Amino acid sequence: MVKRGVFIGRFQPIHKGHIKAIKEILKQVDELIIVIGSAQCSHSFSNPFTAGERITFVKKALDENNIDPNRYYLIPVPDTNDNRIWVAHLVSLTPSFQIVFSNNPLVRRLLTESGFKIGEVKLFERKKYTATLIRTAIIEGKPWEESVPSSVAEFIKDIGGVERIKAIGETKLKL
Amino acid sequence: MVKRGVFIGRFQPIHKGHIKAIKEILKQVDELIIVIGSAQCSHSFSNPFTAGERITFVKKALDENNIDPNRYYLIPVPDTNDNRIWVAHLVSLTPSFQIVFSNNPLVRRLLTESGFKIGEVKLFERKKYTATLIRTAIIEGKPWEESVPSSVAEFIKDIGGVERIKAIGETKLKL
Amino acid sequence: MVKRGVFIGRFQPIHKGHIKAIKEILKQVDELIIVIGSAQCSHSFSNPFTAGERITFVKKALDENNIDPNRYYLIPVPDTNDNRIWVAHLVSLTPSFQIVFSNNPLVRRLLTESGFKIGEVKLFERKKYTATLIRTAIIEGKPWEESVPSSVAEFIKDIGGVERIKAIGETKLKL
Amino acid sequence: MVKRGVFIGRFQPIHKGHIKAIKEILKQVDELIIVIGSAQCSHSFSNPFTAGERITFVKKALDENNIDPNRYYLIPVPDTNDNRIWVAHLVSLTPSFQIVFSNNPLVRRLLTESGFKIGEVKLFERKKYTATLIRTAIIEGKPWEESVPSSVAEFIKDIGGVERIKAIGETKLKL
Amino acid sequence: MVKRGVFIGRFQPIHKGHIKAIKEILKQVDELIIVIGSAQCSHSFSNPFTAGERITFVKKALDENNIDPNRYYLIPVPDTNDNRIWVAHLVSLTPSFQIVFSNNPLVRRLLTESGFKIGEVKLFERKKYTATLIRTAIIEGKPWEESVPSSVAEFIKDIGGVERIKAIGETKLKL
Amino acid sequence: MVKRGVFIGRFQPIHKGHIKAIKEILKQVDELIIVIGSAQCSHSFSNPFTAGERITFVKKALDENNIDPNRYYLIPVPDTNDNRIWVAHLVSLTPSFQIVFSNNPLVRRLLTESGFKIGEVKLFERKKYTATLIRTAIIEGKPWEESVPSSVAEFIKDIGGVERIKAIGETKLKL
Repeated sequence: MVKRGVFIGRFQPIHKGHIKAIKEILKQVDELIIVIGSAQCSHSFSNPFTAGERITFVKKALDENNIDPNRYYLIPVPDTNDNRIWVAHLVSLTPSFQIVFSNNPLVRRLLTESGFKIGEVKLFERKKYTATLIRTAIIEGKPWEESVPSSVAEFIKDIGGVERIKAIGETKLKL
Repeated sequence: MVKRGVFIGRFQPIHKGHIKAIKEILKQVDELIIVIGSAQCSHSFSNPFTAGERITFVKKALDENNIDPNRYYLIPVPDTNDNRIWVAHLVSLTPSFQIVFSNNPLVRRLLTESGFKIGEVKLFERKKYTATLIRTAIIEGKPWEESVPSSVAEFIKDIGGVERIKAIGETKLKL
Repeated sequence: MVKRGVFIGRFQPIHKGHIKAIKEILKQVDELIIVIGSAQCSHSFSNPFTAGERITFVKKALDENNIDPNRYYLIPVPDTNDNRIWVAHLVSLTPSFQIVFSNNPLVRRLLTESGFKIGEVKLFERKKYTATLIRTAIIEGKPWEESVPSSVAEFIKDIGGVERIKAIGETKLKL
Repeated sequence: MVKRGVFIGRFQPIHKGHIKAIKEILKQVDELIIVIGSAQCSHSFSNPFTAGERITFVKKALDENNIDPNRYYLIPVPDTNDNRIWVAHLVSLTPSFQIVFSNNPLVRRLLTESGFKIGEVKLFERKKYTATLIRTAIIEGKPWEESVPSSVAEFIKDIGGVERIKAIGETKLKL
Repeated sequence: MVKRGVFIGRFQPIHKGHIKAIKEILKQVDELIIVIGSAQCSHSFSNPFTAGERITFVKKALDENNIDPNRYYLIPVPDTNDNRIWVAHLVSLTPSFQIVFSNNPLVRRLLTESGFKIGEVKLFERKKYTATLIRTAIIEGKPWEESVPSSVAEFIKDIGGVERIKAIGETKLKL
Repeated sequence: MVKRGVFIGRFQPIHKGHIKAIKEILKQVDELIIVIGSAQCSHSFSNPFTAGERITFVKKALDENNIDPNRYYLIPVPDTNDNRIWVAHLVSLTPSFQIVFSNNPLVRRLLTESGFKIGEVKLFERKKYTATLIRTAIIEGKPWEESVPSSVAEFIKDIGGVERIKAIGETKLKL
């Protein structure tokens, strides 16, 4: 049987810490389901990019890192408002899996209560590589490009992502 | 005609203050509809338990206090996002009632605007018995069992409720 | 451990066939969760009564039949649009159960896929006692009262249920 | 106090029968709330036009008939899936009203149960002027323009409404 | 072609700053679509009034200011939870427009990304005329009537709006 | 620039006609977005398989046909209830695309109205290869395996898909 794991993130945007984690997990499983969480969200400070944009730059990032496309699935999963049905929702949208990689204690708890195995994933330079810091740097006009794969930085600039995040930041200040 | 009242709570978890209030209200009405509010919620700090778990321990608590099952209805009611339809939603899910017991001014206002009578319910040792304090005590590893009927404490421990609330607390700190 | 079963119906309205089935099931379990399905529906041909009205007349019917209120739970469960999350939804709204009583092959299949045991329930004079026939009789002005407990017939008349079902029937013809 | 009525339709499209009815009702009330029902629907056989398109051509039709804009409100109202909350939903989206004009028995029943008065509105040449016939004529390439105010026919053609309805008709045949 | 603009607000309540802005915009366009945003909301501190109540007092305010009803549309638009579909949602509920007036940077960004032109609207005494200040003054029992057209102040008092906002304020303090 | 197309299906299940069409389209574009439509549906006659199951067997079918995983994206897209926002919803969940392949006239119309180019895709032995016929054959116990790639037939049997579809068929007969 194929050993399949799931890795859940929002990837707003994908950064070098994510890439490092995915490479580590791929040593432990045959196939990895990369879940693009909060897939319905976009144009907010926490979630500036649409699921479609995130799928595009996650694929670019994995290609740039020579990760074999036969080793992973890339699946957008919208939030459920209700935690009580979230596991069933996740399971229905993904190929079957046995092990879950996440550092979120609630996600770990929900999947543990449903009988899934929780894997360990060490975070790589966690203080340096976080999506929140990247988005904040963009708003403040500070350098951020080094934290993400170069194809991701290029794509974000091409689609006007910098202007979008700044507009969202301005709204936040105003309200 | 049967004089029927409604008492609205989230019961996360039910505590001795709730029991005291229910006993007081049962002196004023023939039958009481106990609404388990926010029924769609679970696995969050404000709402750790599912509606099904809450129905189970509310029934246990009422049995432990010898409250006649013919005197009450126990009905889970999910939230509506929109206040403007909440009264119609509540009415559609419950047997007909004439009087409402609640200390929430908005709930009182909504039901007053729809023509319902608002009853008075004194809260028993309100500072001591609140569900928020109980959940906080569980996270901090402090004693909480005395605030709830013993069958409720036992059930919460049996279903892993303590571990769940602690995992949620950890998530909160992390985010 | 308490042996708990679940019996799922829409009860539009509850009839003597339902009562017979509930009595039979109560011989097999300690406690029975009676699920009022499609709880969000009302004022249509398939679902004329609100969940609140159905809770009221199901309780009356069980009382009329001297069924001990400590033996059952009466829980309204709205539909999910998506079958893939229905079992998780049902489980979250109900006390824990081990066995399911239903004659609907899809319900049986969904719960079997989730690992639940399916019990057998013989239907009592199925041709005679069906809610669809009762509603059709009401529209056509034919006798229907004998098919339901007398307290149910009385309640339906009291709340204007006959007029409501006839208005719905008229709409149906018109559209 | 202002005597205000409500007239509920889907206006897919508005036709001369609607105009006639609105003129009749305006003799009975000071102000009329014209509800554009099923406002969320479009691009289907029953509901080809968006709410925005319907607002546009209803306004044109009323102008063409010299109906004073101070006598009416034009309000899009999306459907609720649940009849039990529909009246509360309608009330929340409209200025207060006392009387309802509708030939749909269910709508009449729902509003009667909530205590509203139902007015009488005679339908003008009902066989000739129905939106379903107009849409069918468009699909079949038969004349339909005479059934609607000329500004409405012109607008529908301008926005490609004929092509849209034909495409929808083709889909229907195919599925 | 008609030059049509859209002006988006929540109007909780409409105040003299809004009126001034609408008058300014009407110099730039033939017709103005006034969108009553967050139309599903009511009975909260940010959104105390229902869409129906807001439609009523916006109409009164425009009449009081002698604004020609043939120059504007008044359309309630509920929120979408997802920004990614908000423009399509807005477009579907409104007559076609070319230019948007808003001071919210996110609204401006979303509509710019979809190709709409953004107009400029100067805010009139912005510090003095804001709906938040008006609602706060009502809670605190301070004067607020001068900030809104007199027909609006009268209507709010008539429907018990002052009591409603105070009840909501009390709830806020309590929670 | 990458020339990207989108191909929309429900793949209940994927069959040899789909494979043929995908191969044809891949001659016209650099990359193809394969949309798994009605992603929220499962366990019904029209949509027996979950999105996760469909992703699994579509991937197997493409692998069996040696289609390069760098040439396509496989994206589950839930339905919107409202056609008016469907294009925005589709666009938000997918990488950017220029051309759409679909034989559904409504889908073609919706995307044409939004300015997308519609491509031509010839259906291969359309009478022989349709998912509806395959599901009907499964219910009736007739041979169906030859219509789908062999890895797909094997997977469907492994997950109990035959039993599921038969249970659904039985329900249909009963209701």
